[in-house]
Amino acid sequence: MAEGRERIQHERPKRASTSRKVLSIGIDLGGTKIVAGLVSKDGRLLHGVKEQTHGWGDPNDVVEQLSIMVRYLIDRADSYSVGPIGIGAAAQIEEGTGAVTFAPNLGWSYFPLRERLEEVLGLPLLVTNDVRAAAFGEWHLGAGKGFRDLVLVFVGTGIGGSVISSGRLLTGHANTAGELGHTTVLVGGPKCRCPNYGCLEAVAGGWAIALRAQELIAQHRLEGAALLDLADGDINRVTARMVCDTAQRGDLLAQRVIDEAVAALIAGCTSFANAFSPRRIILGGGVIEGYPDLVARVEGGVRERALPAVVKDLEVVKASLGNDAGVIGAAAMARVHFSRKGLSPA
Amino acid sequence: MAEGRERIQHERPKRASTSRKVLSIGIDLGGTKIVAGLVSKDGRLLHGVKEQTHGWGDPNDVVEQLSIMVRYLIDRADSYSVGPIGIGAAAQIEEGTGAVTFAPNLGWSYFPLRERLEEVLGLPLLVTNDVRAAAFGEWHLGAGKGFRDLVLVFVGTGIGGSVISSGRLLTGHANTAGELGHTTVLVGGPKCRCPNYGCLEAVAGGWAIALRAQELIAQHRLEGAALLDLADGDINRVTARMVCDTAQRGDLLAQRVIDEAVAALIAGCTSFANAFSPRRIILGGGVIEGYPDLVARVEGGVRERALPAVVKDLEVVKASLGNDAGVIGAAAMARVHFSRKGLSPA
Repeated sequence: MAEGRERIQHERPKRASTSRKVLSIGIDLGGTKIVAGLVSKDGRLLHGVKEQTHGWGDPNDVVEQLSIMVRYLIDRADSYSVGPIGIGAAAQIEEGTGAVTFAPNLGWSYFPLRERLEEVLGLPLLVTNDVRAAAFGEWHLGAGKGFRDLVLVFVGTGIGGSVISSGRLLTGHANTAGELGHTTVLVGGPKCRCPNYGCLEAVAGGWAIALRAQELIAQHRLEGAALLDLADGDINRVTARMVCDTAQRGDLLAQRVIDEAVAALIAGCTSFANAFSPRRIILGGGVIEGYPDLVARVEGGVRERALPAVVKDLEVVKASLGNDAGVIGAAAMARVHFSRKGLSPA
Repeated sequence: MAEGRERIQHERPKRASTSRKVLSIGIDLGGTKIVAGLVSKDGRLLHGVKEQTHGWGDPNDVVEQLSIMVRYLIDRADSYSVGPIGIGAAAQIEEGTGAVTFAPNLGWSYFPLRERLEEVLGLPLLVTNDVRAAAFGEWHLGAGKGFRDLVLVFVGTGIGGSVISSGRLLTGHANTAGELGHTTVLVGGPKCRCPNYGCLEAVAGGWAIALRAQELIAQHRLEGAALLDLADGDINRVTARMVCDTAQRGDLLAQRVIDEAVAALIAGCTSFANAFSPRRIILGGGVIEGYPDLVARVEGGVRERALPAVVKDLEVVKASLGNDAGVIGAAAMARVHFSRKGLSPA
């Protein structure tokens, strides 16, 4: 701890003359893995580390793990100064305090993450939600750079989102705005993991794509043979990734599942276009990475269906930072945050 | 024109000492009628006038009509000063210029409404969209007073909406944000009047309620007898109002139509709750006024289905300004706008 702090203090005097060489640290804290990296001002991930997340349910284990990862990165920074640290966590975050209020994927309820980690590291931190960090990365350094009105939709196992409107990231009363995966696209549709039915995520999220394929395979063994084979004959091991792969190779059952997901994504993105009037809708996440043609199909549908005034300048594009969006975005968000507060070089 | 201008100029010197007595003029410009009124700072509509909209397709006729209405109101202001004038038009408005870019209900395409009316009246004007004006009214002087995060949904013939997030009204890239009626709630659902299918408006808007009732009556003459009777036996004359009335009196066919609309409103409002995390969802418009119990039913559904963090502080309430929201809101918006610009007493 003392070592890390000393290093930072030692480098501070240089900052006026070497402001271009200050690196920030970004951390993507998920339920299964933690990725942390040194990020330059222009958004390059210079050095990254990845670990399995320790200590399900015990946040103190994660604090210990994070502090070790941060100190390791500070050591790797060589002659660069290390500035602000940003964490994007798979959690609901209390605005202002940086406390986690709910994190089902980490097994935490309330935990003052920012406060505890600042105590251990002796360094100021920004804690935000992981999807919001990734969205911030795409906005400042990725596919949304230079735009003031954006809707970001990340289609992974679940579906997360974030909205930039007139140059401001929407937070809402509970600091949870942007939960676009839980937009109802089908009244009376399949049960979601949230309390609702027919959510976008319940049709087009990775878990829903896998589940729907499993249902269809059980009903149509012949048509499902290729997928089942990929899963070594175990229907429960069919994944969204397998569905994307086989659909792209022409498998009809997999294509049917993807078609349903595309219809839901078109419905959702049309709704987002009409509600927010973005200049760009940015699609990212594992399902999009696994089936890049989805972007053009969604764009085609939205262009046909959204209101003409909204469609005029609208583009639907793929996210450009890929899996690094969370780390780069958390680092960028911290840099901007502490720069505004005058606590750190921007 | 000169008369109006002189009157204003004559009264200006008094403004420092009588700032509480400055009235603004609000105008609700629709395709079938125009309502204009004198509005006090605290949002009371002191004197209103209502006329059929003249000149379908010729905006110059409407400019003439509006200028006569404004001069009449200035004369009625007696000893009060008349300050800013705000117009909420059933149109898409270009941000900054106050020009109408599209107004299907008025039969206009492009028309520089603010510029032309300022020329004729010699007074500064604010021109905005009618739904946005009503939303601003509810926010500043109605059911949303004192809140920073609001979603407003007006269920009339169509469904309009507006969103306030962290104390700012969302506009979006095309200045059309808040088109919440065109949120897809049912993939593959009924055709909307917009290019999309299964929109909230296509199930729960007044026109859709009437259409759905007409369809069901055609299929079930016996169950539809009460509604058909109300419409003097002409199925095409069945209105949403009739459906609301007979549903409240226990008619099963009408209740079925309303139940479908409620399910769509719950789906839509759950989506809005998750996307925006508002403190309040405010429901207004003719259908809500005609069936006030809808508010409690929608609140019950949203409370069950939206994300727990969002539901915690969320309230779903009825709009409080009723039909006057557009006039009061346009006046209030103009007052705030010109006060910020330092052009007029606030």
